[in-house]
Amino acid sequence: MANPEEPSRKKLIINAAVLMSPSGFSPGLWRNPADQSSRFDDLKFWVKLAQTLEAAKFHGIFIADALGGYEIYKGPHNLDPCILTGSQFPNIEPLSVISAMAAVTESLGFSVTVATTFEHPYHLARRLSTVDHLTQGRLGWNIVTGYLDSAARNFGLTKQVEHDQRYVIAEEYMQVMYKLLESSWRDDAVRNSPQSGIFTDPSCVREINHVGEHFNVPGPHICHPSPQRTPLLLQAGASKVGKAFAAQHAEVIFVSGPSPGAVASNIAETRQLAQEKFGRDPAHLKCVALVCPVLGRTEEEAQEKHREYVKQGSVDGALALFGGWTGIDLSKYGEDEELREVESNAIKSITEAWSKSFPGVKKWTKTALAHQIIVGGLCPTIIGTAEQVADELERWVELANLDGFNFSAAINPESFIDIAEMLLPELRRRGLFWDDYAVKGGTLRENSYAIPGQKGLPADHPGAQYHWKAGVEAADAPVSN
Amino acid sequence: MANPEEPSRKKLIINAAVLMSPSGFSPGLWRNPADQSSRFDDLKFWVKLAQTLEAAKFHGIFIADALGGYEIYKGPHNLDPCILTGSQFPNIEPLSVISAMAAVTESLGFSVTVATTFEHPYHLARRLSTVDHLTQGRLGWNIVTGYLDSAARNFGLTKQVEHDQRYVIAEEYMQVMYKLLESSWRDDAVRNSPQSGIFTDPSCVREINHVGEHFNVPGPHICHPSPQRTPLLLQAGASKVGKAFAAQHAEVIFVSGPSPGAVASNIAETRQLAQEKFGRDPAHLKCVALVCPVLGRTEEEAQEKHREYVKQGSVDGALALFGGWTGIDLSKYGEDEELREVESNAIKSITEAWSKSFPGVKKWTKTALAHQIIVGGLCPTIIGTAEQVADELERWVELANLDGFNFSAAINPESFIDIAEMLLPELRRRGLFWDDYAVKGGTLRENSYAIPGQKGLPADHPGAQYHWKAGVEAADAPVSN
Repeated sequence: MANPEEPSRKKLIINAAVLMSPSGFSPGLWRNPADQSSRFDDLKFWVKLAQTLEAAKFHGIFIADALGGYEIYKGPHNLDPCILTGSQFPNIEPLSVISAMAAVTESLGFSVTVATTFEHPYHLARRLSTVDHLTQGRLGWNIVTGYLDSAARNFGLTKQVEHDQRYVIAEEYMQVMYKLLESSWRDDAVRNSPQSGIFTDPSCVREINHVGEHFNVPGPHICHPSPQRTPLLLQAGASKVGKAFAAQHAEVIFVSGPSPGAVASNIAETRQLAQEKFGRDPAHLKCVALVCPVLGRTEEEAQEKHREYVKQGSVDGALALFGGWTGIDLSKYGEDEELREVESNAIKSITEAWSKSFPGVKKWTKTALAHQIIVGGLCPTIIGTAEQVADELERWVELANLDGFNFSAAINPESFIDIAEMLLPELRRRGLFWDDYAVKGGTLRENSYAIPGQKGLPADHPGAQYHWKAGVEAADAPVSN
Repeated sequence: MANPEEPSRKKLIINAAVLMSPSGFSPGLWRNPADQSSRFDDLKFWVKLAQTLEAAKFHGIFIADALGGYEIYKGPHNLDPCILTGSQFPNIEPLSVISAMAAVTESLGFSVTVATTFEHPYHLARRLSTVDHLTQGRLGWNIVTGYLDSAARNFGLTKQVEHDQRYVIAEEYMQVMYKLLESSWRDDAVRNSPQSGIFTDPSCVREINHVGEHFNVPGPHICHPSPQRTPLLLQAGASKVGKAFAAQHAEVIFVSGPSPGAVASNIAETRQLAQEKFGRDPAHLKCVALVCPVLGRTEEEAQEKHREYVKQGSVDGALALFGGWTGIDLSKYGEDEELREVESNAIKSITEAWSKSFPGVKKWTKTALAHQIIVGGLCPTIIGTAEQVADELERWVELANLDGFNFSAAINPESFIDIAEMLLPELRRRGLFWDDYAVKGGTLRENSYAIPGQKGLPADHPGAQYHWKAGVEAADAPVSN
């Protein structure tokens, strides 16, 4: 363990991870009397949550999202387990709620998941620029390509576009986005000068004339430059092409795995690729892991909470989510079947990985796996006092070279309040969490890098090459097409 | 003039019409020292405006929108006049700001313009349901098909889809929307029952299996029923197919013309069509006209304000907007040319219609036309004391059988504050405006019809046939495909 007195300890990035759906990541826990997550369609719930998180100095709220339901479990094409248990279904649209949360806060960030597959880049660029303006630069975009057939079918596709091809399209999509967000307007294009009558200098706005394989977008962008221009970019690719995409585009990388060891190599590889292939400073890729802390004033209190949660959650809801995430329908296996011994290599490797991290679970039946998912999703549940949880988080940070955590909640907002009241003070005591935002009233990027003034993409980011800076003539500005 | 004491006088619908753009409808008036419209990207501006409008009991705020700039004037393909003068360019995305305004109000409605041409219905249905939830049923959707080539090109089209064909596609689009919003979930599908563990009864959620010419959408809708299910539907069709569309779908119809006589026949024809062809009660089509009042404590004060506005506004900005709206490039005509005498029949008929309503303007040059547009857009400017303006509004209501007005602002928010402080008290004195919302904390539909309990589409609306009511078995529910 590092010396808690050491003044230069890395300050962690701490986000609250939620969905706009009952129970969010914790299937069935809307049944807990303290849980308020079934108010996911109530503006007052989100406004209050934003205030709670900002008071505790969370970096941001991260809203996961999908455009379809999970239909693998007891499937094929069976949404009933999700629908019945309220497991990420219904699921309302996250970008819509941000302005209300922004209006009552000044430094909290808002990272929203939006897929590149179901919305035209010109349309999404406008939505993102708008919200970055309205939040004064506190928007993050979690780039996903969408993976659910159930979503794809609703856009007229017979099934989801094949995985690697989605990334090929996403790659061009990002080019269009950078051109619109960074290259179409000069930083100082807007003059807003009543004297001269010039609102915007037309010589500082240009078409992007993107002509590509998948998109033809002449531009110009219909929005003037927002505080961050490009929102903070987040991504969670774990496949080969996903990692290459993250190495190029992501500023914050989400990792999810049962143990620090299981995510360490992904992180190291992505950072290495970012450096070698794209010339980026690997320290500019902030890696945060999804974990679910269950906190008590005593260890026994925490364990008791956890036991209650497991009882209240929904096994069917958990297995429905697992089906969607992995494509595996565990309904085909018996109640008592040891999943580490089944024929499917995919199932064996998943459960073996989890069993190493949770040696307390003796038999990995589908119900045991569901119990793991119920509390915070398919991520490590860390149970104990603030000291115990902080010790475990420190172990993760050291072994995986992490920069922070996305905390999912068992009970919303109670679990976040526990984190604020118990865990964050302990992390602060250890020098691992800031006393206040690096830049109060600043952008999400400034606060995520803890670099005042870093509102836009860092210079080594591939998107920065498109940036049309103040004072630069159009002819000398970076290529826009 | 009707007797002001008459108790049963029709109460008017009053909306504030804006854009998320400098000056909104009044090109160049961001130059006025009192004008705050260049804060269109500032959340605090919108939050304050919503509070101001609700305190004055406006029915709602109406946000116009377009996805491209105006490029006809001094064209072709020339955005510079718009860009330079800040005339509806930049223009940020309106649905994003609604939740912030909803969080500080309880009865004010929010009507937002969204095109059917540039976003998939499954995606838009989700965005609309989400905002209808977050506002507790205070959302209106102004259905447009999009008309600007500059927008269409950014979605990969070489130019905008031909006018009538856009309405054919929009017709199918509406079917998909009704199926998702009205037919996919039963009113009482969500149980949220911790005892039984049932969040949603799966037998009350169904696919819509829409297979059509332009869209294939199996569903189900990913959002549970919002308070209004379908947002209040607004439309502004004036062409033959546009009127047929409005007669079928619109609950609120926007009209825009220089005089009551010029809009009366449109209103009468649309209502007649609604009754004869679609079996709707013509009183269920609420017609509101766009007008811009310029108010003073004395007539001279009002006239002086108006003279100032005309001086401060932008002729080029006005002619750029005119170009976009009509497709006519007036830069081709001389400064002194009388537009009623030019060869173009389109220009002649527009200016002749305006000249009848404004006999004070002796010569209709392009500058004279621009001066008309500068104050509130291509709509009648009504200048005078509250009494004078109210008299003129009464004349409009009677001659055109109107239900209310969309007020555009010369100066935002000052013009709306003038309306609140001078005009609305006068209308109230005449029994033409309510003392308070018909349903405090109610839905936009309840307050627009002034019928408590009318949260959903009226029974005679074509969309109502899709409504899956509480307690009805799936087999007996209206056809979903």
